[in-house]
Amino acid sequence: MTAETGTPAAEPAASAVQAPPAKGPLPRTGIGPARPRGRQDWSSWPSYDSAVLGFRNFWYPVAWASQVARAPLGVTVCGERVVLARGKDGRVRGLHDRCPHRGVPLSLGKQEFPGTVSCPYHGWTFDLEGGRLCAVITDGPDSPVCGKVTVRSYPVEERLGLVWVWIGDPDPAPIDQQLPEELTAGDPFTLGGRIDIRGGNWRFACENGYDEGHAKYLHRTSLWRTFKTMPTWNLTHIEKHGRWIYRVQDEVHWEADFPGLGTWTNYRWWKKKPPKETFNIGNTGKAKRIDPVIAKHAFPGFASLSLPGVLRIVYPTFIHYEFYVPVNTDSHRYVGAMVNFGTGWRVAEFIAKYLGGIRWLFHGQFSGQDKWMVDVTDAPPERLYRPDVSLTTWRKLCVDSGALPQPLDVVDQKA
Amino acid sequence: MTAETGTPAAEPAASAVQAPPAKGPLPRTGIGPARPRGRQDWSSWPSYDSAVLGFRNFWYPVAWASQVARAPLGVTVCGERVVLARGKDGRVRGLHDRCPHRGVPLSLGKQEFPGTVSCPYHGWTFDLEGGRLCAVITDGPDSPVCGKVTVRSYPVEERLGLVWVWIGDPDPAPIDQQLPEELTAGDPFTLGGRIDIRGGNWRFACENGYDEGHAKYLHRTSLWRTFKTMPTWNLTHIEKHGRWIYRVQDEVHWEADFPGLGTWTNYRWWKKKPPKETFNIGNTGKAKRIDPVIAKHAFPGFASLSLPGVLRIVYPTFIHYEFYVPVNTDSHRYVGAMVNFGTGWRVAEFIAKYLGGIRWLFHGQFSGQDKWMVDVTDAPPERLYRPDVSLTTWRKLCVDSGALPQPLDVVDQKA
Amino acid sequence: MTAETGTPAAEPAASAVQAPPAKGPLPRTGIGPARPRGRQDWSSWPSYDSAVLGFRNFWYPVAWASQVARAPLGVTVCGERVVLARGKDGRVRGLHDRCPHRGVPLSLGKQEFPGTVSCPYHGWTFDLEGGRLCAVITDGPDSPVCGKVTVRSYPVEERLGLVWVWIGDPDPAPIDQQLPEELTAGDPFTLGGRIDIRGGNWRFACENGYDEGHAKYLHRTSLWRTFKTMPTWNLTHIEKHGRWIYRVQDEVHWEADFPGLGTWTNYRWWKKKPPKETFNIGNTGKAKRIDPVIAKHAFPGFASLSLPGVLRIVYPTFIHYEFYVPVNTDSHRYVGAMVNFGTGWRVAEFIAKYLGGIRWLFHGQFSGQDKWMVDVTDAPPERLYRPDVSLTTWRKLCVDSGALPQPLDVVDQKA
Repeated sequence: MTAETGTPAAEPAASAVQAPPAKGPLPRTGIGPARPRGRQDWSSWPSYDSAVLGFRNFWYPVAWASQVARAPLGVTVCGERVVLARGKDGRVRGLHDRCPHRGVPLSLGKQEFPGTVSCPYHGWTFDLEGGRLCAVITDGPDSPVCGKVTVRSYPVEERLGLVWVWIGDPDPAPIDQQLPEELTAGDPFTLGGRIDIRGGNWRFACENGYDEGHAKYLHRTSLWRTFKTMPTWNLTHIEKHGRWIYRVQDEVHWEADFPGLGTWTNYRWWKKKPPKETFNIGNTGKAKRIDPVIAKHAFPGFASLSLPGVLRIVYPTFIHYEFYVPVNTDSHRYVGAMVNFGTGWRVAEFIAKYLGGIRWLFHGQFSGQDKWMVDVTDAPPERLYRPDVSLTTWRKLCVDSGALPQPLDVVDQKA
Repeated sequence: MTAETGTPAAEPAASAVQAPPAKGPLPRTGIGPARPRGRQDWSSWPSYDSAVLGFRNFWYPVAWASQVARAPLGVTVCGERVVLARGKDGRVRGLHDRCPHRGVPLSLGKQEFPGTVSCPYHGWTFDLEGGRLCAVITDGPDSPVCGKVTVRSYPVEERLGLVWVWIGDPDPAPIDQQLPEELTAGDPFTLGGRIDIRGGNWRFACENGYDEGHAKYLHRTSLWRTFKTMPTWNLTHIEKHGRWIYRVQDEVHWEADFPGLGTWTNYRWWKKKPPKETFNIGNTGKAKRIDPVIAKHAFPGFASLSLPGVLRIVYPTFIHYEFYVPVNTDSHRYVGAMVNFGTGWRVAEFIAKYLGGIRWLFHGQFSGQDKWMVDVTDAPPERLYRPDVSLTTWRKLCVDSGALPQPLDVVDQKA
Repeated sequence: MTAETGTPAAEPAASAVQAPPAKGPLPRTGIGPARPRGRQDWSSWPSYDSAVLGFRNFWYPVAWASQVARAPLGVTVCGERVVLARGKDGRVRGLHDRCPHRGVPLSLGKQEFPGTVSCPYHGWTFDLEGGRLCAVITDGPDSPVCGKVTVRSYPVEERLGLVWVWIGDPDPAPIDQQLPEELTAGDPFTLGGRIDIRGGNWRFACENGYDEGHAKYLHRTSLWRTFKTMPTWNLTHIEKHGRWIYRVQDEVHWEADFPGLGTWTNYRWWKKKPPKETFNIGNTGKAKRIDPVIAKHAFPGFASLSLPGVLRIVYPTFIHYEFYVPVNTDSHRYVGAMVNFGTGWRVAEFIAKYLGGIRWLFHGQFSGQDKWMVDVTDAPPERLYRPDVSLTTWRKLCVDSGALPQPLDVVDQKA
């Protein structure tokens, strides 16, 4: 087990939370010692600290493929505004969502000519492929500006029923290298999911998702866990395999006796009795049957995380993914997806189960508890504890990867 | 025809819209050459660039005369708060809308004594004529502060059924010199109109109104043009006559064939066929009959503009005006007016036509399309095109006029 | 009578309100002399000027005792966030409302174990008494962080049916020394009141409450005064007795004749005729009967004020209090209370009178007029007048008291 991070044992016991530094003759507000305790900033992970708008040179899912048609759709990713529309060949294209003429969003326009998008204001018409200004309706066929203006185009791909946009330098990496490998190995699967714009920086959402500790307490009241006991506390360590970091459970404890306070457990008489043995697939107990595709991958841990913010939670019969896509400094796009590898009649069974339950209980009410916390999280300063080795390892992974933070001045970029 | 402004032919062809300048070690966001293309700011027109709150030493229409009675009415013009009320003689007066005592708006008060306005808080009572503190109700007749405090008064006039406020230095210019000359020449007319507070800086509203290009495309779907074809593109030049600049149409094209894309026209089978000949009164074709008063003025062009933001659109049987009155940095007061010079039974005919149609179709739905665009325009940076000679000439007119920009620190001025 | 404050007679008569200082080549906006008139800032009272968030080392009422139960309740006082909850002994405790782990408000949590509050996110559990981290549910009984983290605790008391929080340095002063002395002398009383979060800085609320002038004019239309005449103007002086300053009425005038304007009075035919003699208890006339407890205290004036913003208005049969509790820079908590010293059946009579009338007419509609003005007051700059000796004496009282302003950087303090 990894030792607690961010709280060197050499620090003396603190008896108070600190006041802000006194200025001039004003008194200190706080009680207790003057030296601040806990982590005051994220300077230990400089690139992560800077990645308010996420990391560049990654693919980000932004919409369901079925949501993008000929009519332009505007989205914001990592602070960049992108307009999406399907070209003549049916493929989705992306352009910077700002007409260079007067700054009006192209996503308010339409396709006057197939394969182009026209600004609603003066009919400046851009080729969806490449972004070249190919006509200006209100300036006639010989308009001198034609061919002299190009809006930036964004690499776009469709995968897993989602539209993905490349945010970064011109030559995109192959998208399949970034997708979870079990989804590109050729095994057929069925996917259901939800997309939501949520308050809070993407890093709080990502840390919430991978966070070892919160699920057991925050989600204790979720309907999704009505009949299954959640553990009280675990001993965990983190292992890195390839580009993923895995939480590996060493001990799972179903109740705890806190001296002077009493016993705490999530077990109730109507819930399934928790198992005796340790396990690593699912978080409520060892499964009778593990899906053969899932078993084949032999995931070292139940929960894994990779850049640029992809969470994978492995259950015995399905895998749940969360993609935390930066929108701007204070909001992110939550893309939740549930994948089942069954075939034949199991496809229909999964779809029924997803639409009839998972969508509402898990991607709705359960995930809504995360949304609540992500929105009120306010760190740093922060005081990490033993299970937060999951967070510090994730932050270190980001730094070690050498990933480039998206510059902050890209927000609402105008040109 | 004037050449395209703002895009010197010497500039090499651009292949991309630019990223913001890179800072420190962060990567450039954009694709393409590093040198920004297009106009990055309005420094070519310094006083126009500064005139965020409009120009000083002009009369601005702020309300219908019928809206101003004895009860005080507060308005904001060019960032200055003004309270309007009718004095004992029935004339409208204007004072700075801030009681110097504690900063409460006088427009929340009432006329305790005819010809004065009393602050609602402590009854400080100011003479509407001159702004002198003439009584303090809660301090008795011998209040020492009386006569020692004066709030600034604003010159106010009534013209065209509107109340006009002078924003500027103490001695106002004669208002009639600023009104469109056809309205002060003695010909009787009838006027209908609408006043609206709208989002967006007044300059975007003004440029939108005079803008050669947008009407043909943006308004193609307006109900006001259901049965009349709009041109596709024009060749235009701008002429200056006195204080007005006129758009003069050299060529009007009703359809265009864009190579590789197809043909575009606003003509539909149910619309009136467009005319063959060029014309300059109205924008959908040559009129059978031009009102004799309108004809008498021999306007060199359909659309004309003058300081401080007055648009005149000449139709064969009426003239439409738009006054773009700065409110604060991000909003303006739209004053739209339609004037008909008919007499006798034509007055009743025009009123019926205005109330039954023009008010809703033109000043409502058609003008609402402008409102939509003005609110989302976001320039500079901008990349002007051939028809925007109308904009650059307007900006130059402002600079050449020597008009003084309203200082920005006047916003919410406190004293 | 004290001379008018803040308007030295040596200043020449002003004929205009001033424009903001001109910058660079821009013209002056104002008419009149260039030197600003009136008070431009509050630098004459430095600590009062700084006390945007109130004064430290005082007790502040924040909620009715009946509103605070076992479930945590979050309040903001002087920019500090405090969570309140009742401990095992039923006493209310206060902690800093921010979990040091990830910044989530503890007031969103619950008491998992009696006498503690658990953060909703990861179950960090703090002792309500002292704020020590006594358990971390999701890290088990041997969690190394336990005992090493403490959130700041706030002294809390219950008095007058209200919960009071001490904002300041560790050792609180005895609360009873701060309460109005007539409420701690042992006489039984009944209290009714309202608590409201209102817009506007607490100082505007406090100055409004004590302000000699406004009641007569602003409240002339209040339902509470339907049948009682309000004076038109008074001559007043301020006396300091102990920690209170009292407004003492030297002359009360029920009407005034303003030269050139006319006569003004609040008297109407249906209102009680105002009295001839001067009086100092109540503001609408001399009372037939004064409650013996109230009479015993021989208050030198009808309206009195003490730090940190406690107003006392003495009526013949009850006393009205207002506590202006800073919330943040732009809002305050209004705590209005009416106290009656009757016993026996008079208790029931008062409760009926309060609930049936006073609550709605006085603490509702009448006090709502104050709320309206406090929200739009915008000073400095300001131009004080004779009755404002009440304000300047109050500001001087604050400065002379040596009270410490709450530092501004405490707002949303994170640690």
